[in-house]
Amino acid sequence: MNPIDRLTELFERFPGIGPRQARRFVHYLLSERPALRAELADAIRTLGAHTAQCVKCYRWFVKGADVAGLCTICAARPRDRSVLFVVEKDADIDNVERSGFKGLYFVLGGTIPLASEEPEKYIRLRELLSRIEADAAGTGNGGPSSVSVALKEVILGLSATTEGDHTRLLLQEKILPLAALLNFKITSLGRGLSTGSELEYADPDTIASALSSRQ
Amino acid sequence: MNPIDRLTELFERFPGIGPRQARRFVHYLLSERPALRAELADAIRTLGAHTAQCVKCYRWFVKGADVAGLCTICAARPRDRSVLFVVEKDADIDNVERSGFKGLYFVLGGTIPLASEEPEKYIRLRELLSRIEADAAGTGNGGPSSVSVALKEVILGLSATTEGDHTRLLLQEKILPLAALLNFKITSLGRGLSTGSELEYADPDTIASALSSRQ
Amino acid sequence: MNPIDRLTELFERFPGIGPRQARRFVHYLLSERPALRAELADAIRTLGAHTAQCVKCYRWFVKGADVAGLCTICAARPRDRSVLFVVEKDADIDNVERSGFKGLYFVLGGTIPLASEEPEKYIRLRELLSRIEADAAGTGNGGPSSVSVALKEVILGLSATTEGDHTRLLLQEKILPLAALLNFKITSLGRGLSTGSELEYADPDTIASALSSRQ
Amino acid sequence: MNPIDRLTELFERFPGIGPRQARRFVHYLLSERPALRAELADAIRTLGAHTAQCVKCYRWFVKGADVAGLCTICAARPRDRSVLFVVEKDADIDNVERSGFKGLYFVLGGTIPLASEEPEKYIRLRELLSRIEADAAGTGNGGPSSVSVALKEVILGLSATTEGDHTRLLLQEKILPLAALLNFKITSLGRGLSTGSELEYADPDTIASALSSRQ
Repeated sequence: MNPIDRLTELFERFPGIGPRQARRFVHYLLSERPALRAELADAIRTLGAHTAQCVKCYRWFVKGADVAGLCTICAARPRDRSVLFVVEKDADIDNVERSGFKGLYFVLGGTIPLASEEPEKYIRLRELLSRIEADAAGTGNGGPSSVSVALKEVILGLSATTEGDHTRLLLQEKILPLAALLNFKITSLGRGLSTGSELEYADPDTIASALSSRQ
Repeated sequence: MNPIDRLTELFERFPGIGPRQARRFVHYLLSERPALRAELADAIRTLGAHTAQCVKCYRWFVKGADVAGLCTICAARPRDRSVLFVVEKDADIDNVERSGFKGLYFVLGGTIPLASEEPEKYIRLRELLSRIEADAAGTGNGGPSSVSVALKEVILGLSATTEGDHTRLLLQEKILPLAALLNFKITSLGRGLSTGSELEYADPDTIASALSSRQ
Repeated sequence: MNPIDRLTELFERFPGIGPRQARRFVHYLLSERPALRAELADAIRTLGAHTAQCVKCYRWFVKGADVAGLCTICAARPRDRSVLFVVEKDADIDNVERSGFKGLYFVLGGTIPLASEEPEKYIRLRELLSRIEADAAGTGNGGPSSVSVALKEVILGLSATTEGDHTRLLLQEKILPLAALLNFKITSLGRGLSTGSELEYADPDTIASALSSRQ
Repeated sequence: MNPIDRLTELFERFPGIGPRQARRFVHYLLSERPALRAELADAIRTLGAHTAQCVKCYRWFVKGADVAGLCTICAARPRDRSVLFVVEKDADIDNVERSGFKGLYFVLGGTIPLASEEPEKYIRLRELLSRIEADAAGTGNGGPSSVSVALKEVILGLSATTEGDHTRLLLQEKILPLAALLNFKITSLGRGLSTGSELEYADPDTIASALSSRQ
């Protein structure tokens, strides 16, 4: 395959990018200075060398003065180590941080398709269960400090979609024995009216959730 | 003004209708049989005579074998008369009914604009307060039966918009003294992820609400 | 059926209106003053009495000092009576007038569905052919003046859609014998880039048309 | 700046990509195998070495068995060398090729902003004029063959936007003296209804164009 078609094809794998926009990316790069292409190529090539996946939350972070393979959030002192927020992907964390959450995270790496018989192929289930066990025992979440705090709550922060619900139910089932044994709560994000939505246009499920979570 | 322009202008007042669609409505009517136009005109002209505003919830309903000016919901026996759901407009009720709610309603008639100094111009505040007083005393909500049930909860079902929030806060302030005196709860609909929404695209406020209403 | 449901159903027949918006229209009318409802009902009821379909172009117009059943355009002196613009519906005329066209019109009343075997059920084919015959003979388009002008061109102003093209082809076939006999041209609107469109996003058909109509 | 933020910033320069999608691209790359990142980096880094800008039409193409720096279209024997299609950018050519055009191209490299006093900063004006001169003299467009064909037409294939029109007018003015001297036509793409558009929703300019290019 010729180099232009090959690069187009690689861009088509980017999330949300179709053949036409992939081709525009190549045309954009062709029109740019070679120095910028070299910089971009270098940034992509060395991405792996400059980053690491946090050994505790599996989030990607930039290597630096990190302590024992921990990302900045897992290594931070003032976080509430008794609450673990389970998310689908790295990008969710950026968004949850903006909402003011101060606990810790775990990145599942995806959701489980409805038809799947092998959840482990899609999400880090085993890793989540060992993380929870370690945290609940108060041995695994201490970060750089030596003081450890026992886990009190696991928040299942899945999307409010069919696959998200499916994944949430399976996680609940798998975590429940640990929760009973090690004495922590399993919670899910509240459903309801999201900011800006009007009652007249809300679907019945959302209204039923908003009613049951009224306060 | 000529009759076509006049009718176009009247249709432009319909919710969500601009000049172009208003004109299309007139062209549609011109192309229809005179008998259908006559039926539509008759249905609009007699709308007032065939309907009434419920004396308890201010919802519009079709007159018939109604008891003492009550709409079908207010007059229905099996509803839970201890819960009052306050909504902005009639159309909200259709939607809340679909969610399975079984209590009673009150239609405010709108929301209060942010800059307004006279809330009474926009919503039925006085009427709501007397309704609540009567219900809380157990004298006003008995419907056709003679058994009365005391009010236990007022749900403020405003939209999750800036005006909706503004109206909700004002209602809370006005209803609070009655709630303290007559012993009922004031609640609001839960905020959170609405059906189908993904964490990555949710706004920080919605995530914060979903976190605080987690369960 | 109850009057609210009946009126909702009548509004659902309006072009582009679904059940939910139809219901909002009824709620809007319920919230309006009875006087406005009466005025709207009256405007709809008397629409037929105040309007007429032009005997030459079949456009609806407001009756007044009209001459012999002609609409304002057909009756106007300074129009170019040698060009006939065939459109699908009344609303198209408003738009073509804004483009500065100064000839005459004929309203087909619709387009012919692809599967149809009976074009006459959908468009005024017979009426169009007699209008063209009269115009071509210079007897039918004189308007109020006594000077008649022979037809030189029929513009088929159909939409650039599959049904529009289908209708255009059938009209061409039906009008062609008259054109040969009575010596006038049949033309169609030029295809090409419409205002604001970019070459990169245009479809191949549009580019091919834009190429063949380049000037 | 850290490597993740730096790469995000580089992706934000891609056409149509905002900060959020740029970040998703980085997360996508982090989740991919290092081998794929290496391949992508390599494809971007060597893009310049594998491609060249055609010396005749300024389109980017993949180097290979090319003759004297010509792209595949400029070098192809069966193209009509008497027609030159001037386009804004490489991507336009892909689209025009799909419409069946068989002449040659010239890539301007952009459009001229309305306020600009220096058109040469935005488009290859000088290069276009020398190309036209060479082609018109029948010395420059022979491609690999030795038979040369004199230029008969320059098609200005600008977008139907304000900037496109502005650029087209300036090009016409600049090319006109050459056209008079060397005896070729300057044409522009036809404006009109684009595929799928309805008369009722067309703007007056488009209808006026469709009328003047009727046939």
